Amino acid sequence: MKTVAIVGVGLIGGSFGLALRKAGFTGELLGVSSGPALEAGLQSGAISSRATLEDAAGTADLIYLSQPVDRILQTLETLGPLTRPECLVTDAGSTKVAIVQKASEYLPPGVFLGGHPIAGKEQRGVQAADPDLFRNRVYVLTPIDPQTQLSGEFRHWLSRIGSNVIQMSPSEHDATVAFTSHLPQLISTALAVTLAKRNQASLAEVFGSGLLDMTRLALSPPDLWLSILATNQAGIMAATGAFLDSFTELRESILTGDPAHLFEAAAQFAGKLRNPASTKQGDGFANSL
Amino acid sequence: MKTVAIVGVGLIGGSFGLALRKAGFTGELLGVSSGPALEAGLQSGAISSRATLEDAAGTADLIYLSQPVDRILQTLETLGPLTRPECLVTDAGSTKVAIVQKASEYLPPGVFLGGHPIAGKEQRGVQAADPDLFRNRVYVLTPIDPQTQLSGEFRHWLSRIGSNVIQMSPSEHDATVAFTSHLPQLISTALAVTLAKRNQASLAEVFGSGLLDMTRLALSPPDLWLSILATNQAGIMAATGAFLDSFTELRESILTGDPAHLFEAAAQFAGKLRNPASTKQGDGFANSL
Repeated sequence: MKTVAIVGVGLIGGSFGLALRKAGFTGELLGVSSGPALEAGLQSGAISSRATLEDAAGTADLIYLSQPVDRILQTLETLGPLTRPECLVTDAGSTKVAIVQKASEYLPPGVFLGGHPIAGKEQRGVQAADPDLFRNRVYVLTPIDPQTQLSGEFRHWLSRIGSNVIQMSPSEHDATVAFTSHLPQLISTALAVTLAKRNQASLAEVFGSGLLDMTRLALSPPDLWLSILATNQAGIMAATGAFLDSFTELRESILTGDPAHLFEAAAQFAGKLRNPASTKQGDGFANSL
Repeated sequence: MKTVAIVGVGLIGGSFGLALRKAGFTGELLGVSSGPALEAGLQSGAISSRATLEDAAGTADLIYLSQPVDRILQTLETLGPLTRPECLVTDAGSTKVAIVQKASEYLPPGVFLGGHPIAGKEQRGVQAADPDLFRNRVYVLTPIDPQTQLSGEFRHWLSRIGSNVIQMSPSEHDATVAFTSHLPQLISTALAVTLAKRNQASLAEVFGSGLLDMTRLALSPPDLWLSILATNQAGIMAATGAFLDSFTELRESILTGDPAHLFEAAAQFAGKLRNPASTKQGDGFANSL
């Protein structure tokens, strides 16, 4: 793996370039992105030179797609006729079924490896890129075919930049993040919408740190989320439906005076999230419900 | 105001004692609480001596009830026959209608002033007490009758410990915190319950900081919350009903592909919460919905 092309030099792509450098990668880091992003990426060392997608496809061993989901889908179509069968294409998109499907339609077989680093921060853009963004973070891979030398090399670099690689199928990935990422986002947004609609001055005066925690995700940029939501409708319907059931059960338990067991199960699960060593399948979260 | 009795020497009561001292209060700080809490309070200087509730009622100018809501309700009944008409009784309970009602039944007229400091932290107990806990925080007072010299003195001390005093009626307070405090708590608990019920190992592996934010409140101690919920059922039904409407609207907008306007309204409101200078009634949050 001598030449890497980063398509979309933003927070994730820029961090990937910086992380590779910090881990000892000495090859070429081509950047395919907008003019200002390339300029900032060159300055920070996240990329070593500019390229067009055509040039990148002609020379890169690894093509790393770190754009929003809708842009990744478009890039895969464009890459189709340009991609050499001996390269590896991977992505960092937040949903996987639609992207893996699109790649199977447009790219040569054995070339594509779906990925999703569970990492990020509130700031966007290559200016916020961080060589340690992936350190001690889960990096999901959704392998379909590729057991090539290049895919082995890529996994090796993921370890060297500190990621904890987990394998799951695209559909398992999307079903999981519907609960752990998309549902929390939608809840935060709906909470902020509820208070906004109320349009009452005291709501913005009489509040504590809890409301700030619960509305932080509501600050997320809508444009990134629209294509995530559009490509995981089934998973999101399942997760939001399950949440509506739990929320309604909790709401009714207040009227009957018996919410204690739900509070205890919730506190237990929230505690386990923060103590992953003791979290494994079948450890009885659901037993107490 | 020479003698203050703090009934319930925990995080809030202990912080109130430390804050008074830091602000220059030189009188007696009586503590009425469990043995270990009194011991810790004496060591940290949050109180200056132990007392029974009877002794405190007989000598204190200000009686500060900083217990959980259900305990405050019990203490008001006990205080009834003990309270001298020339003292001021106030509380720090998280709901106000039930407490103000109980005080009006059991205490002499003009003695009680309901209060709620919008301050706290994750740790409990006087060991976590902090003289700056109330600094730059809202402190709601729900005055019914008392325009006494003592109530004026108490307000003066609230200013000196750095609180931002806001007045509202008990019912307005409870309706407001139903949206800004009780609703976020219930949402966080219901989210954690949803994931706990799913009982799937990958849910505790593939998640980022967003899920941690959204489940922090779910760690709250159930015992504190049960009496809060029980004393604000009407407010909570209104707030949870409004949230169910917003969440359902957002969920359906994903199927129709048009959640952008809800994301934008939510981001706008969440931004205003963090920039209170620009937040005032009728500034048009609801207009964009």
